[in-house]
Amino acid sequence: MKLKMDRAELNGFLQEAFPQVASDFEVEEVSEETLRVRMKITEKNLRPGGTVSGPAMFSLADVAIYLAVLARIGPVALAVTTNANIDFMRKPVAGEDLLAEARILKLGKSLAVGDVLIQSEGMEAPVARASLTYAIPPKREDSR
Amino acid sequence: MKLKMDRAELNGFLQEAFPQVASDFEVEEVSEETLRVRMKITEKNLRPGGTVSGPAMFSLADVAIYLAVLARIGPVALAVTTNANIDFMRKPVAGEDLLAEARILKLGKSLAVGDVLIQSEGMEAPVARASLTYAIPPKREDSR
Amino acid sequence: MKLKMDRAELNGFLQEAFPQVASDFEVEEVSEETLRVRMKITEKNLRPGGTVSGPAMFSLADVAIYLAVLARIGPVALAVTTNANIDFMRKPVAGEDLLAEARILKLGKSLAVGDVLIQSEGMEAPVARASLTYAIPPKREDSR
Amino acid sequence: MKLKMDRAELNGFLQEAFPQVASDFEVEEVSEETLRVRMKITEKNLRPGGTVSGPAMFSLADVAIYLAVLARIGPVALAVTTNANIDFMRKPVAGEDLLAEARILKLGKSLAVGDVLIQSEGMEAPVARASLTYAIPPKREDSR
Repeated sequence: MKLKMDRAELNGFLQEAFPQVASDFEVEEVSEETLRVRMKITEKNLRPGGTVSGPAMFSLADVAIYLAVLARIGPVALAVTTNANIDFMRKPVAGEDLLAEARILKLGKSLAVGDVLIQSEGMEAPVARASLTYAIPPKREDSR
Repeated sequence: MKLKMDRAELNGFLQEAFPQVASDFEVEEVSEETLRVRMKITEKNLRPGGTVSGPAMFSLADVAIYLAVLARIGPVALAVTTNANIDFMRKPVAGEDLLAEARILKLGKSLAVGDVLIQSEGMEAPVARASLTYAIPPKREDSR
Repeated sequence: MKLKMDRAELNGFLQEAFPQVASDFEVEEVSEETLRVRMKITEKNLRPGGTVSGPAMFSLADVAIYLAVLARIGPVALAVTTNANIDFMRKPVAGEDLLAEARILKLGKSLAVGDVLIQSEGMEAPVARASLTYAIPPKREDSR
Repeated sequence: MKLKMDRAELNGFLQEAFPQVASDFEVEEVSEETLRVRMKITEKNLRPGGTVSGPAMFSLADVAIYLAVLARIGPVALAVTTNANIDFMRKPVAGEDLLAEARILKLGKSLAVGDVLIQSEGMEAPVARASLTYAIPPKREDSR
C-alpha cells in the first residue's frame, strides 16, 4: 500500500498532535513493510533499578502502530485504540533507548490491526511484543 | 484467602516502592473479593480534549491488580507483569477521576491472574476492562 | 437493556444456525446481567488424561458471549469475532461439564465486547477467563 | 537455538500424543527461525458458508507454537497454554487449507512466548494472528 506520510511528516504530526509526549519518540524509518520508532529513555520513564515501566512500553507500542496506520491513511484520522495485548518478555537494558518495529496486518474500512516488537538498543532478544486494534471512524476528519 | 495487607499498608507500600507515581493512586477499599483504586486525574494524564490517555489507563489496571496480588502474598514480592490485555470501550468523562475494581482469579505458585473494570467517577458504563498476568518468583524477597 | 431473545429462542437459534455443534451447548439462563451456557463434555472434547482441550474452551467462551450479544440485538446479526483473549488458569475437572457465565460490557453500533468465566461443574475456582470482541455489521440481516 | 526435533519427529510426536487431531495437521518446515504447519480443511472444521471456524483457527495457532517450543526443548515437555490472544482479521478462503508460520520470541525456564500468522493457501493477506504463552514445568518428563 502506498504511503501518504513520510518520516518527516510523521514526526511533525507527533509534535503537533501530542506535544506532551512528542519529545519521547522519533520515527526513524517508514516503509510499506515496517515503521521503526525510537523511544528516548529518560528519568521519568524509569522504575527503580533503571527498568523502563510497563506503561512506557505500552505507550511506545501504541504510538508505533498508530503512526504506521496514519502513514497509510493520512494525518486526518481520528482512530482510537480499542484493544491492546502486550507480552513483557525480558527486562529492558537499563538506560538504553527502546526501538519498536511495527507492521500493519489489516487495514479495513473500520478496523486496523498491527503488531510490534520492542527491543532495547544493542540487545537482539525482544523485550516485549504487542498487538493493537484501532477503530477507524467512518468520517475521517481532524486528528485524534 | 486471608489478606496480608490492609488499605493503609497498601497505600504506604505505594509511597515507598513507587514514589514517582504514588500520588496518582489511592487504594480506597480492599477485601478478599475486590480491591478498588482511585486514579486522580491531572493535566499530565490527559490527551487533547480532556481524555485520559491509554497508557494512563494501562498503568491504573496494572497498579490495581498488582496491589490486589500483594494484598494476598505480602509486600515482599518481586512480581512482574508478563501479559496484559486491555479493551478500551468508552471515552472517559473529561476531568473525572477513574475508579478501578480488581479481582484475583488465580494465585498460583508461579503465576497470578486478575482482571479489572475501570469506570469514570459518576458514569456507570465501564470505560475499559483489562486482564493481566504476573510471574511470581520462587524466592520472595524485597519489593519490585 | 431489554432482551430480544429468551432462553428457548437462543437454544433454538443454536440448533438452526450451528447444527454441527449445537448439541454440545445449552443455554441455562439468560438475564440482562448474565448468560449461562453449559458445555456437555464428551469424548471428542477431551485430551489424554480427561482434560478438556483449549479449543473446546475457546469455543465455549465464543458461543457464550455471542449468544449474550444476540440476546440483546436479536437473531438477525451477522456478528463476527474479531479478537479473543483467553487465560487458561486451572485444569478442568476430568469428565465434568463446563459452565460459562458471560456478561456484555459494551454494545456499540459497530463493536460489542464481553467477558466470560468458565468453571468445571462442582468446582468453584474458575478454569478459564476470556474476553472477546465482535464486529457488528451496519446492516443486520440473516444469521452468521 | 539448536533444534532437538526435526520435521519428521514433530509429525511423529503429533501422531502419538494427539491421535484425535493429528490427521488435521502437518508440519511442513521447521528451522531455528520458523515453523510452518498446514491445517487440512475438512467438513468438520467448516461453518455454514465454507468458513473455517474460530476454534479451528485457535487450535492451529496453538499446535504451531506448541510444536515450535517442543522443537527447541524436546518431546519430553508437559507444557501447557496459559494465555492466548488471537485477532481474526479476514475471512479464510472457502475450502482452502490454512498455513501457519510460528516463531518463538521467548524461551525461558518457566515461560515460553510465541506468535503466529495464519494464511489461507493462495491468499497473501493473513486471516489471523495469534500470540500464546506456555508454562514449562520445572521437571520435564512425559508428553502433555
